[in-house]
Amino acid sequence: MTVRTLQGFMELLPEEQIVMEHMKAVIAHTYELFGFAPLDTPVLELAEVLLSKSGGDTEKQIYEFKKGDTDLAMRFDLTVPLAKYVALHHNELTFPFKRYQIGKVYRGERPQKGRFREFYQCDIDIIDRDELNIAYDAEVLAVIYTVFQKLALPAFKIYINNRKLLSGFLEYLEIADKTVDVLRLVDKIKKIPEEAFLGELGDLGLPEAKNKTLLNFIKIKGSNDEIIAKLEDFKIDNEAFCNGLNELKTVVGQAQLLGIPAENVQIDLSITRGLDYYTGTVYETFFDEHPEFGSVCSGGRYDNLSSVFMDKKFPGVGISIGLTRLYDQLHGKGLLDIKGPTPNKALIILQNSDYTAQAMQLLGKLRRFDIAADVMLRESKFKKKMEYANKIKVPYLIIIGEDEAANGYYTFKDMTSGVQQKASFEQICALLRP
Amino acid sequence: MTVRTLQGFMELLPEEQIVMEHMKAVIAHTYELFGFAPLDTPVLELAEVLLSKSGGDTEKQIYEFKKGDTDLAMRFDLTVPLAKYVALHHNELTFPFKRYQIGKVYRGERPQKGRFREFYQCDIDIIDRDELNIAYDAEVLAVIYTVFQKLALPAFKIYINNRKLLSGFLEYLEIADKTVDVLRLVDKIKKIPEEAFLGELGDLGLPEAKNKTLLNFIKIKGSNDEIIAKLEDFKIDNEAFCNGLNELKTVVGQAQLLGIPAENVQIDLSITRGLDYYTGTVYETFFDEHPEFGSVCSGGRYDNLSSVFMDKKFPGVGISIGLTRLYDQLHGKGLLDIKGPTPNKALIILQNSDYTAQAMQLLGKLRRFDIAADVMLRESKFKKKMEYANKIKVPYLIIIGEDEAANGYYTFKDMTSGVQQKASFEQICALLRP
Repeated sequence: MTVRTLQGFMELLPEEQIVMEHMKAVIAHTYELFGFAPLDTPVLELAEVLLSKSGGDTEKQIYEFKKGDTDLAMRFDLTVPLAKYVALHHNELTFPFKRYQIGKVYRGERPQKGRFREFYQCDIDIIDRDELNIAYDAEVLAVIYTVFQKLALPAFKIYINNRKLLSGFLEYLEIADKTVDVLRLVDKIKKIPEEAFLGELGDLGLPEAKNKTLLNFIKIKGSNDEIIAKLEDFKIDNEAFCNGLNELKTVVGQAQLLGIPAENVQIDLSITRGLDYYTGTVYETFFDEHPEFGSVCSGGRYDNLSSVFMDKKFPGVGISIGLTRLYDQLHGKGLLDIKGPTPNKALIILQNSDYTAQAMQLLGKLRRFDIAADVMLRESKFKKKMEYANKIKVPYLIIIGEDEAANGYYTFKDMTSGVQQKASFEQICALLRP
Repeated sequence: MTVRTLQGFMELLPEEQIVMEHMKAVIAHTYELFGFAPLDTPVLELAEVLLSKSGGDTEKQIYEFKKGDTDLAMRFDLTVPLAKYVALHHNELTFPFKRYQIGKVYRGERPQKGRFREFYQCDIDIIDRDELNIAYDAEVLAVIYTVFQKLALPAFKIYINNRKLLSGFLEYLEIADKTVDVLRLVDKIKKIPEEAFLGELGDLGLPEAKNKTLLNFIKIKGSNDEIIAKLEDFKIDNEAFCNGLNELKTVVGQAQLLGIPAENVQIDLSITRGLDYYTGTVYETFFDEHPEFGSVCSGGRYDNLSSVFMDKKFPGVGISIGLTRLYDQLHGKGLLDIKGPTPNKALIILQNSDYTAQAMQLLGKLRRFDIAADVMLRESKFKKKMEYANKIKVPYLIIIGEDEAANGYYTFKDMTSGVQQKASFEQICALLRP
């Protein structure tokens, strides 16, 4: 029989998994620091629930099957399950409702480097009834900033924009009927030359002068204050444009009050999240030195979360980190701090098995002081036991042998410095306590 | 369309999910304290990999389907994926290999109260090449004890036995050819009257005298020392029996050295985990006052983890906590400490939106001190904002209004005691820092 793990499904070694778990824990802790409550929805849902919103591409990628008479599907994101959850539970929830969810999602794409069929998404969303205060869009910025700062990753920038600006600008140019096509094109602007961009706009039947105006608009550069000033200078009398500009100004202002450093937030009028359902603020996050990673955290504001499931209006704002891909990219570039395959602070090794009782007593005591510790109990030569300690890269070693047992002390070794000393239980505790 | 969550799939409200996440975190933390490294394997595997070990029941319950030409299945436990993992990666792992895994598994059983189709298993296993020191079986006991103690749940006892004792005893009684049937019956002993038990043994064609001897054997009661003394008094000259007895004595002795209180570990010769693949020590865990929950943590020692996948021998010992069911049972009895739906320590509310800037600055500062905090930004009357604070059961409230803004202080309210005071940022920090 074939023993293998499916292609496109990440399966890590312990030393790698420890880093992945650390990243998950930092993300969860930060989300809670900002008042998001955890949520956990099923991996399996009724197929008609998951497919209610989807277009053709999703349907091809989805893992769908029948069990008995029921059409089931594995979730392909955490947003549709949230929309279902709010539709089912809105009477039991308190709004504004801030939830986070860290969970696996499934997309049966053709496997290729950097693409996964099973991957973690780490989502937050803030949902309210009828209306959601724009200041929450700045809260989301603060979460993204804090997560990446706490993950201690390379320098990054969060790029923001507001969809209403571009729609308003297209209305002002009187080419609003082409909005969907234009959005799709703008989304590609960083990947294609300007001539190609203008050419494709021309192919849509748009006049050359307007296309150049549009290109110059999305290319506006400068500090956030400078870009806002330039947008105000247009003095465009269009409702969507003015709303978008006001919202963007508020978000940038509140972000500053929340203490996000200016160098980590940049207005970029070419960010649109073209194919998504966003209606206001949009976010993308890039590492300064690794644009090839693509956006590592994206999202935005939407008017109505659960429209396919109910009549009530629930506007929201949220973002998602594609953690599996992010881990894979960082690991591939050697940017993760991979230590050893053990969570232990200390390992006890014995001269021989006569000292097992002493080891067990010591272990019990260490763990009662919340010190992660272990004993190597395999029968082998002392040299082999030392090799094991080196291999698992445990930070501290405790040795028990004849002299230690007779005279009531432990030999305590710092594996990093190589320094070895006689130590009492109290001394070991003082050195190792978290 | 039907908007619903599938039957048999747990979906909690935020205040419940917070408790569930706390339980998961305590379990993971304890597993790491004992030196177990995290592992995360895919939910989907090749069907032939998952079904390699299974009997008929598993096959009926499994979620299996085709994607393209590939037969896929959702994992129904975490043991078969571990066996696959060790078979694939044994050259990259360091042995003894201690891993934990907390993840969802899937069984398409008929849904009924207390049965779930998607549920969390929280597993640990210690695996070695060729041989695994028996003292590790005591380590597993210590993990179970520490997890339940740290979860702060009702009084519990871990029942242990050794499979070799019963097999040896059946050999000694010269009825070893009926071992499988007898094991299955012994497994039922707590659910059927003694007469029925003896009757069913009779139905197997076993002589009445031997059946009574067997019943008296599995009924042996007393302290661990008393039971061991009684077993030694039998002076049975059978290899399996003597090995089982020695192993059991070692496990009980080492457990004591590790500091597990005597009242939490009880030898019970009727525990066999009859239908499982265990070969030595077996464990079950019951709440003293809630035997109706069944065993909430079970496991045992096995000779060879990956036998279906490879020739090499990997003995191991492990246990599993069925967390979803445990949560459900405890919740059903009101034994969980459900607080509010927010992870926040403090909520800021404003007399009106004029003070949003002050709120955002304060929020930024609190969170930089690792204090989970939030602001209520929905436009509404002050009374409504107070109602919101009460509803989400936030422990502390910070109020900013005209007087606070003008005179540079905050109104700080302890929502439990109702006590309200003027406070500076430093005072709030001192009261709330974790």
